[in-house]
Amino acid sequence: IAGLVLKVWKFLKRAWDIGVDDPRKVIHCLKVGMALTVVSLFYFMRPLYKGVGGNAMWAIMTVVVVFENTVGATICKSLNRVFGTTLAGFLAFGVHWVASQSGQEFEPLITGASVFLLASTATFSRFIPSVKARFDYGAMIFILTFSLVTVSGYRVDKLFDMAHQRISTIIIGTSLCIFVTMFICPIWAGEELHILISRNMDKLANSLDGCVDEHFNYNGELKDSDKQPDKKLLGYKCVLSSKATEESMATFARWEPAHGRFNFKHPWQQYLKIGASMRSCAYCVEALNRCIDSENQASEFTKKHLSNICLKVSSNSSSVMKEVAKTIKTMKRSPSIDFLVEEMRSTVQDLQNELNFLPKLLSPPEVLHPESKETEETTSTTHLLEVIPVVTFASLMIEISSRIQAIVET
Amino acid sequence: IAGLVLKVWKFLKRAWDIGVDDPRKVIHCLKVGMALTVVSLFYFMRPLYKGVGGNAMWAIMTVVVVFENTVGATICKSLNRVFGTTLAGFLAFGVHWVASQSGQEFEPLITGASVFLLASTATFSRFIPSVKARFDYGAMIFILTFSLVTVSGYRVDKLFDMAHQRISTIIIGTSLCIFVTMFICPIWAGEELHILISRNMDKLANSLDGCVDEHFNYNGELKDSDKQPDKKLLGYKCVLSSKATEESMATFARWEPAHGRFNFKHPWQQYLKIGASMRSCAYCVEALNRCIDSENQASEFTKKHLSNICLKVSSNSSSVMKEVAKTIKTMKRSPSIDFLVEEMRSTVQDLQNELNFLPKLLSPPEVLHPESKETEETTSTTHLLEVIPVVTFASLMIEISSRIQAIVET
Repeated sequence: IAGLVLKVWKFLKRAWDIGVDDPRKVIHCLKVGMALTVVSLFYFMRPLYKGVGGNAMWAIMTVVVVFENTVGATICKSLNRVFGTTLAGFLAFGVHWVASQSGQEFEPLITGASVFLLASTATFSRFIPSVKARFDYGAMIFILTFSLVTVSGYRVDKLFDMAHQRISTIIIGTSLCIFVTMFICPIWAGEELHILISRNMDKLANSLDGCVDEHFNYNGELKDSDKQPDKKLLGYKCVLSSKATEESMATFARWEPAHGRFNFKHPWQQYLKIGASMRSCAYCVEALNRCIDSENQASEFTKKHLSNICLKVSSNSSSVMKEVAKTIKTMKRSPSIDFLVEEMRSTVQDLQNELNFLPKLLSPPEVLHPESKETEETTSTTHLLEVIPVVTFASLMIEISSRIQAIVET
Repeated sequence: IAGLVLKVWKFLKRAWDIGVDDPRKVIHCLKVGMALTVVSLFYFMRPLYKGVGGNAMWAIMTVVVVFENTVGATICKSLNRVFGTTLAGFLAFGVHWVASQSGQEFEPLITGASVFLLASTATFSRFIPSVKARFDYGAMIFILTFSLVTVSGYRVDKLFDMAHQRISTIIIGTSLCIFVTMFICPIWAGEELHILISRNMDKLANSLDGCVDEHFNYNGELKDSDKQPDKKLLGYKCVLSSKATEESMATFARWEPAHGRFNFKHPWQQYLKIGASMRSCAYCVEALNRCIDSENQASEFTKKHLSNICLKVSSNSSSVMKEVAKTIKTMKRSPSIDFLVEEMRSTVQDLQNELNFLPKLLSPPEVLHPESKETEETTSTTHLLEVIPVVTFASLMIEISSRIQAIVET
């Protein structure tokens, strides 16, 4: 029993941490509770209940199902629900009319066949990627409403009244949801995406810095400041794993109206491109990081020789990245970015030159210690390996950020 | 208008391709249609309709919402739905009883407050990762049922009858769904995961092979067989992007009963570990691939010198991977795997020795062409870079596969 109590305690502790970590989640929960309480007024107040009757149930159901964390997701689901229901409702009326004209015997047959056909087709459409991204929920609601209306049309007489009330309660539910998400502490998917991207870029810059630092200080203060940089170093893992989040955010962001600094036609696709190039840069950091862990370490001599220039390259490229992150954050073209990029290019050139001259410098010790040569290659080339994508990446970044400026400013 | 027709045509073409590509998707759609038609018999047949009345609606709704592509997902959702509904139903009865005892005035107050509290708590629980992975849907259903029952208890008299009928229709719907998914062309999440992992490993081996081949044949038959290897080369991208799929499959696989060669307690977590190490290997292939594209190419001389040994290393390691893939596929420990690994280790050792002697060999041309030296470093070190993780990876793989054997055979 003590074990169980401990488990429950741990669970509650974790839940509490989540709440403290991101208070907006708690606010979201309160918003859900509030919307549900408001919608249940339809039951508690006699005049409202008279208007819709037992169909008030649909308003409650809509609120529970449609209310999502971000504004974009809520709007997306609401629109899907309303249009899916309406479309399916009209189709179902058509089928019901045809079936009821064709006599007592054929009615169940026609109804059953139409349900089978349309449900299969709609289910299949959910497998098509372009439909899945935007109308997945709508297709499900379409199937649901269509089969409910056609099939229950066989038993219920006042079908039109029922459908009318149901659609109106759904509209009441969705508009309440949209109202609550948009006006009470709204969480915009677009803004989240914006923050996520710029924060990830900062993290990436930090871990590039930390990685190169650690590589060259390895022998010096070995495991001296072990914990603190470790966390910084692993920042690039966030970049690697955030693909799915970015994509869903970008999908939802498209449904959101203009808010804050974001227009309606904000180029959300650009964020995905930036995310992709950040990921390809993170792969390089991963490779670099592996070099730190590998048993082959460069000789002292080469390390010392290269450390200055390598540190310079890494600090320059990370400062470019930080500048780009700032650019994204403020959505204003920073005046110093061209200068920083130029500087980075020239240090990269320096590093390349340095590497060209290395063999000459190493000729004397080389014959004595053939193995030191090999390990040295690891160091220098890692940097070459890293330098190439960093340059590519940076130029890509500048391209993208300037494009964003162009679109934002118009 | 012609543009619209063309667009529709393209859309239909794409849909057709999806169907041809994976006929099981089409079968799934037909299964959904069938389940819906069967469940609508509750409306068409008088004795059945008499039993449940208008609540037959809930059976239809359950089928639409719960029916998923894989058996595991369907069972997971079904159990979540049934238990969420039952639990919420009992709680709601308790609250309703307390509220109805406390007099006309306080009843709406108590009901509203309890809805607010429980809905907020349940919504919050959906943010906790361990709950989200398994009981996300159950929490939603809990909120839905709880608010429906408590709130409509204010208006409906025969609450107990209603709840009883509703739960029984939901159970009818879920058991129909489970029956149809399990016995008509079932798609098991576990089997899908199994196939995905072994196929991804094959792809990874192929792209490692292709990558190294291309690197060394670059100058030879440049862009001769361009298209065919390109596709092979990009196989590793599948490995990089399949993380989310693997995770959801593993979650669903845990809900599935024993089927085929899989026991109930099959170690699904191991698959995730294999997936993770495959991804870390794919990062290396990505880095290697970048070297092919980079403008710095190694000198002819070094390439020729190293090509034999490098090709050997890559073919050995890819054959180890293929063997592991076969091991996973057949779930039988292959007798040759130890031998292959040993062979790979020795070729890796050879490569390292070769690299140690390289500087000596290169001493004469080095002074003449300093830049050739630098680029050569790129080649050799890339391979070192690659070799280290491949060895680590391979030993990890063997560890894992033997562990799987141990668990499968018990």
